[in-house]
Amino acid sequence: MPHDQRHPFSYPVAARYAGMASSPLKDIFALAARENVISFAGGIPDPQLFDLGAVTETYDWVLTHHGVRALQYGVSEGETELREQAARRLCRSLPTDASQIQVTSGSQEGLFVIAQAMLEPGDVVLVESPTYLAAVQAFSVHGARIIGVDTDDDGVLPEALDEAIRTHHPKFVYLIPTFQNPTGRTMPMARRQAVAEVLLRTEVPLIEDDPYGELSFTGGTWAPIASLPGMSERTLLLNSMSKLMSPGLRIGWVRAEGTIRDTLSVAKAAISMQSSVIDQLTVARYLETQDLDAHVATVSAVYRERRDAMAAAIGRVLPDSAHVTHPDGGMFLWAALGDGYDAQAMLTDAVEAGVAYLPGWSFFADHADVSTMRLSFVTHSPAVIEDGISRLGEVIARHG
Amino acid sequence: MPHDQRHPFSYPVAARYAGMASSPLKDIFALAARENVISFAGGIPDPQLFDLGAVTETYDWVLTHHGVRALQYGVSEGETELREQAARRLCRSLPTDASQIQVTSGSQEGLFVIAQAMLEPGDVVLVESPTYLAAVQAFSVHGARIIGVDTDDDGVLPEALDEAIRTHHPKFVYLIPTFQNPTGRTMPMARRQAVAEVLLRTEVPLIEDDPYGELSFTGGTWAPIASLPGMSERTLLLNSMSKLMSPGLRIGWVRAEGTIRDTLSVAKAAISMQSSVIDQLTVARYLETQDLDAHVATVSAVYRERRDAMAAAIGRVLPDSAHVTHPDGGMFLWAALGDGYDAQAMLTDAVEAGVAYLPGWSFFADHADVSTMRLSFVTHSPAVIEDGISRLGEVIARHG
Repeated sequence: MPHDQRHPFSYPVAARYAGMASSPLKDIFALAARENVISFAGGIPDPQLFDLGAVTETYDWVLTHHGVRALQYGVSEGETELREQAARRLCRSLPTDASQIQVTSGSQEGLFVIAQAMLEPGDVVLVESPTYLAAVQAFSVHGARIIGVDTDDDGVLPEALDEAIRTHHPKFVYLIPTFQNPTGRTMPMARRQAVAEVLLRTEVPLIEDDPYGELSFTGGTWAPIASLPGMSERTLLLNSMSKLMSPGLRIGWVRAEGTIRDTLSVAKAAISMQSSVIDQLTVARYLETQDLDAHVATVSAVYRERRDAMAAAIGRVLPDSAHVTHPDGGMFLWAALGDGYDAQAMLTDAVEAGVAYLPGWSFFADHADVSTMRLSFVTHSPAVIEDGISRLGEVIARHG
Repeated sequence: MPHDQRHPFSYPVAARYAGMASSPLKDIFALAARENVISFAGGIPDPQLFDLGAVTETYDWVLTHHGVRALQYGVSEGETELREQAARRLCRSLPTDASQIQVTSGSQEGLFVIAQAMLEPGDVVLVESPTYLAAVQAFSVHGARIIGVDTDDDGVLPEALDEAIRTHHPKFVYLIPTFQNPTGRTMPMARRQAVAEVLLRTEVPLIEDDPYGELSFTGGTWAPIASLPGMSERTLLLNSMSKLMSPGLRIGWVRAEGTIRDTLSVAKAAISMQSSVIDQLTVARYLETQDLDAHVATVSAVYRERRDAMAAAIGRVLPDSAHVTHPDGGMFLWAALGDGYDAQAMLTDAVEAGVAYLPGWSFFADHADVSTMRLSFVTHSPAVIEDGISRLGEVIARHG
């Protein structure tokens, strides 16, 4: 066999992943994970707030009462009990039948399933500028061109959306209307209505991502754009248990009316056959027997204190040129330092000073504002947050 | 808003899923699931043989000892303990480091991840004729052209493979060398060596799918083609816990040498971020503390009795024109009834007579032999198998 005399073997890699074996974000997270660094970089729930006792009991109940079923193959659309519980929760803002639910292994798979089912190479997807970077990736690897639409503190600008639709004829629009990642912004009702009007008039489908909506600090709840008149039939609405119950279980779902739900199920089958049956049955049983709302209220109260701590601290250290969001829920705060600042370039110094954040450039599909940074306020106590932001303040002052 | 006066909204569907909202196979499985039908159609493990007690204890152990970690985000390549256990098992036939393991949500996601990482539209993939239909789908939705290569009872023919490679310049070759789905065939060592020689000479990568290899009825084990000299660096080898421990947990892995493993991880992240952390930790702990080999030996002994029952019964009812495989392991037996028979057309009569199978046409990428059928022997007891095959015999006789 002649292989020993030849060059080392190398697999052909599809263009969509060419040069992506490592990512700058991975390097950033590695930096942020260093000892003695207070990291605001990640978007991970505080594990101390997990409802571990009830989850453990629920796994045991499922294995005791439905063990054989939990270990056997299930169906691609998802287990009936979970689809029913998902529909029940959705019904609080939007009439939903269990048959309209496609279970996915977290929202990431939901976004990927939608992209598989709908996108052709060369299609345009419109997104908020900035937006969730892993969604952009799920669309990009399907050959879509991602175009950012201008936003203000109330979310995407309806006029800009209208113009972008007329210019680019997108396959769909992707929005995170409530406690957005990365900005923490929420679209008020009037803005939601204006956006819906544009989408109805132009007949462009909406992908509405809502992983954070229940993490409200005001007690208020936000009706999804999907619940506005005429919108439910043209909106694929994504929910996830990751931020409310546990990200480790990888359970989310897509609400879809009409035959597109069947197409999503066929795509889901091609991708991963079905989601973990035991995890699905456990989430279903948890939603049936536990008070998730009470649990989420507890979590949100803790996160609100931390939001307050971060908002107060950062107000003291930001330069006059800066603009910072004040989220009413969710996990993130977004700061634009203003002209002359480069959050990526500043990161090495920040880590040296013992604090880390996510530079904002990675959340822009195009025309990145390099002075921006995303700060998660959910991981640390108020005291640690104050310490971290004060360290950040020194670094910002040096770079001013 | 003008939407009410218009046609009902309809989502654009990507060409790869156009017309796939329902599948003929789904209809077949619905038929097979009817009451009083003895179904040999599915490929599902016998749930009575699940090691439910130990699995339940293991979930409890993981949640008690690593609960917070089990519920938190993990990493795209998979949890360290699981990758170590996977490597340990692989080392019995092929030196493997944990860093060479990419965890996937079952082998289906493994196939999809590989397709994402490697395939461009228009690429050719060579497969055995017949082969596993869900693999074909994972490749097809990436725009690949699937071409079947001729086989005999020892698997793919090396000369035919050589010629197909020279004619079609495939991106990779996909093979299931041991207890193949759908035929139950196994490639002997000499054939494996001849196939490896072709792949080494032509420098075409191999995707080697091995979900059934441990379900051996002879006590013999089969070294993967990946373990032959020169092959490990050019073979992506897939294993799955679905047929050995539980399909409901959706845990499998891909063994990959070199930088392609990083690319697989990036693709996995885009598709589903990571597999269920709790399921990964549970499988890892199970593999560490339980004797999976002993469990698999018990399962295999039961399946062997059923293979014997089906082989004996079917020998009595097949026409002279038929050819049937005699699997040394796995779950399936494959019968070609011969010229003039149409297994799909015969299925309605079969279900009427109280027996179901999977018509073989769906397992061919091209040039289907419509007289073929796949029969799973693992689901029913020998007595039920004899009853079912005797019903099938009457139907075959009527169609002869």
